Amino acid sequence: MKNFFLTLSLISVLISCSEIKSTKRIKSIVNKKDSTAIKHIFNSALTNGQCYQWLAILSNNIGGRLSGSPEAQQAVDWGEKLMKELDFDKVWLQPIMVPHWVRGEKEEAHFTVNNTKINVPICALGGSIATLENGISAEVIEVKSLEEAEALGEELRGKIVFFNRPFDDTLIRTFHAYGGCVDQRYSGAKVTGKFGAVGAIIRSMTNSIDDYPHTGVMSYGDLLDEEKVPTAAISTKAANLLSEKLKENPTLKFYFKQSCKTLPDAPSFNVIGEITGSESPEKYITVGGHLDSWDLGDGAHDDGAGIVQSIEVARLLKLNNIKPRHTIRVVLFMNEENGLRGGKKYAEEAKKNNEIHVAALESDAGGFTPRGFSFDESGKNYDLFMSWKPLLAPYGLLDINTGGSGADIGPLKNETISLFGYRPDSQRYFDYHHASTDTFDKVNKRELELGAASMASLIYLLDTYLD
Amino acid sequence: MKNFFLTLSLISVLISCSEIKSTKRIKSIVNKKDSTAIKHIFNSALTNGQCYQWLAILSNNIGGRLSGSPEAQQAVDWGEKLMKELDFDKVWLQPIMVPHWVRGEKEEAHFTVNNTKINVPICALGGSIATLENGISAEVIEVKSLEEAEALGEELRGKIVFFNRPFDDTLIRTFHAYGGCVDQRYSGAKVTGKFGAVGAIIRSMTNSIDDYPHTGVMSYGDLLDEEKVPTAAISTKAANLLSEKLKENPTLKFYFKQSCKTLPDAPSFNVIGEITGSESPEKYITVGGHLDSWDLGDGAHDDGAGIVQSIEVARLLKLNNIKPRHTIRVVLFMNEENGLRGGKKYAEEAKKNNEIHVAALESDAGGFTPRGFSFDESGKNYDLFMSWKPLLAPYGLLDINTGGSGADIGPLKNETISLFGYRPDSQRYFDYHHASTDTFDKVNKRELELGAASMASLIYLLDTYLD
Repeated sequence: MKNFFLTLSLISVLISCSEIKSTKRIKSIVNKKDSTAIKHIFNSALTNGQCYQWLAILSNNIGGRLSGSPEAQQAVDWGEKLMKELDFDKVWLQPIMVPHWVRGEKEEAHFTVNNTKINVPICALGGSIATLENGISAEVIEVKSLEEAEALGEELRGKIVFFNRPFDDTLIRTFHAYGGCVDQRYSGAKVTGKFGAVGAIIRSMTNSIDDYPHTGVMSYGDLLDEEKVPTAAISTKAANLLSEKLKENPTLKFYFKQSCKTLPDAPSFNVIGEITGSESPEKYITVGGHLDSWDLGDGAHDDGAGIVQSIEVARLLKLNNIKPRHTIRVVLFMNEENGLRGGKKYAEEAKKNNEIHVAALESDAGGFTPRGFSFDESGKNYDLFMSWKPLLAPYGLLDINTGGSGADIGPLKNETISLFGYRPDSQRYFDYHHASTDTFDKVNKRELELGAASMASLIYLLDTYLD
Repeated sequence: MKNFFLTLSLISVLISCSEIKSTKRIKSIVNKKDSTAIKHIFNSALTNGQCYQWLAILSNNIGGRLSGSPEAQQAVDWGEKLMKELDFDKVWLQPIMVPHWVRGEKEEAHFTVNNTKINVPICALGGSIATLENGISAEVIEVKSLEEAEALGEELRGKIVFFNRPFDDTLIRTFHAYGGCVDQRYSGAKVTGKFGAVGAIIRSMTNSIDDYPHTGVMSYGDLLDEEKVPTAAISTKAANLLSEKLKENPTLKFYFKQSCKTLPDAPSFNVIGEITGSESPEKYITVGGHLDSWDLGDGAHDDGAGIVQSIEVARLLKLNNIKPRHTIRVVLFMNEENGLRGGKKYAEEAKKNNEIHVAALESDAGGFTPRGFSFDESGKNYDLFMSWKPLLAPYGLLDINTGGSGADIGPLKNETISLFGYRPDSQRYFDYHHASTDTFDKVNKRELELGAASMASLIYLLDTYLD
């Protein structure tokens, strides 16, 4: 009896081995077809790519394109025209209303120590109110967190609150450092305004110690109008200097002036292009980025890169005679930066129209060299996605893992959709993010093209293997 | 009997399983200590790094430092002084004689079509002879390979041979594309000179289509003096233009002038710093890069990055109280670019002194974001090195594989040494390689520091686990 069980066990071991072999054989056949398709996608992206040239137009000819601006409308027109020229099966505009904040005149700021005026680079945060016409001047309280500010309570009255918690440079992925600091930018004014502070100055969200202030969205939450205070970002170098000088002169006065304002919501659009599916046209795979950008630079990395890569995905599929089974939607989302109205509207319409969305991919982490993809997945397709690793590894896509996807496709989330984020190398992203340095010359042609090919390869696999 | 063997087999399977479990347990203990050490190394590199500041001095204050130049000697002095300041146990100069080639006046080149003179950017290749004082002018024969030139034979007489095979952009690792083209630069003149050609013009070794000529070493092999012809690199944009115009005007004349020359060999040095091993001081682990660079840029990526990272490795070990078991040698090799005299000398001395070298690591692929390491290994330590992958993966070092190591440490190769090459991302490397664009501003602080920490971590592991 004992031997019988042993024998049985051994047989079951042998059967498992044979199953493994058979699975491996099937996989290697599948992989040959897939690896060839992916190789062709990369070859055409690298020898016949278009996305870099498109980005030159979007960045250099149109430039920064904040929601509601004339440039944002130019970008809509450009995207629609380009996708029509590329012979998508369908191209249309999805109307939305977007927040319309304008920066106004260039900001000014300085502080004075020992009768020496030190000018410092600042920029208003998106959504902030203006200062008084002649600016404001007040003593400064430096804090490192919302909690520290909250705890100071009434001590903040009449003061400018200076949020100065730096990025944690030891975090290898710079997005984690950003995630650990950005509450200061988003909620600094909300927390301090209620205690009678007169302004908020936020250390720029970057690892780099330099002279460029980085803007970004902020919120007053449910503050009353009279509690709202003007809020600006200060360059990291100036933040370090201010912090140092405050230690010597705790009563120094900081002056800043900005004339930004929020206008009534403006009409705008998501731009959508479609390749109709050959087998299941009623099922959708979305690939996109966001068309709006901040106004200081030309939005080349954030997120011009994601826009041109997404359009390139469709072109690469067509160029390689890949006829997708599902309907592929390229979506140029409007207003990711300060409202997410485009992403919300797209998901709302999808739901209203009972569209079946099987997967979505967003590129919104810059046009840098490819590292991988992350996916926000309930678990059912985990093994499938992981089985693609050997197909993607030859292209430097070694980091395939669960994680976030993208802000614009987030609202599509339900129990069945697979949401992916393209993950290029993150080391330089926050050098440029939301600053005047986010310009076309910071994008490398090959890196951008490799990203587009990476995304097209993932879309090919999703289209091939998902129901 | 049958059952006995089955039983035996199953027992052996069970024993294997138990061995695996036990090994895993041991590994997880070891890994905790190692992962903590590596985490500390990265933390200190990213918050308290020095290598970027050192590179600023080497690149901006000293600049390009071709073997035999005053700048190369300044770099030697700088390296020696720095390692002494860092309190290495021993710092010394290892004398060598190096080739001494000088560029002379700035090169000129043009060709004329329809009476319009088109100036094009060229630069002499290292080791080339000068043109006549007033330059040379001749018809051009375009070829795509050494074989094609060789086959043309006597047709080359009196002509300038234009080697114009471009990088294969479909190769994901740009070093593979370089490897597939660089025979034109190194041997173009050797092949064509013997047929009476009067000059050789080589398409620059880069993926990028731009206006920068990329220099590099060339060789005349065993040509007689009268067979040697002046040889220069031409920018890729100009190469494309010349090729296009040659199709319309096959008899157009190309003019170029250069005044470079080779002087007698000059004295120079490898710079060596040592941390004496605590357990096996007679066994060496070498980490290095090359101190010389081409003269057009300031050699920030090639190979200032490798130099400052190698010195930083030693500083990071000391800073984290890691007392290496083996003697760690930081070697700033001289003359990698046009002679490899430093690498050869170092190996020669090691052999002469019966030194036992257990491992060596070279960084000579730029200061870009880390991707991994390659190792040139006979096989005996393959499993050990691969077992480190989980320790290195959190830092983006996902690509650990067999492959080449580095030119300078190559001469150390024997049956026992493990040779490693640091492998940062390669996409932008050949945009700058050997061109005037290889300057400090192209290096990102975090990327450089991550590289130094990656290297220090590998040295830590090699020191911990190798006998």
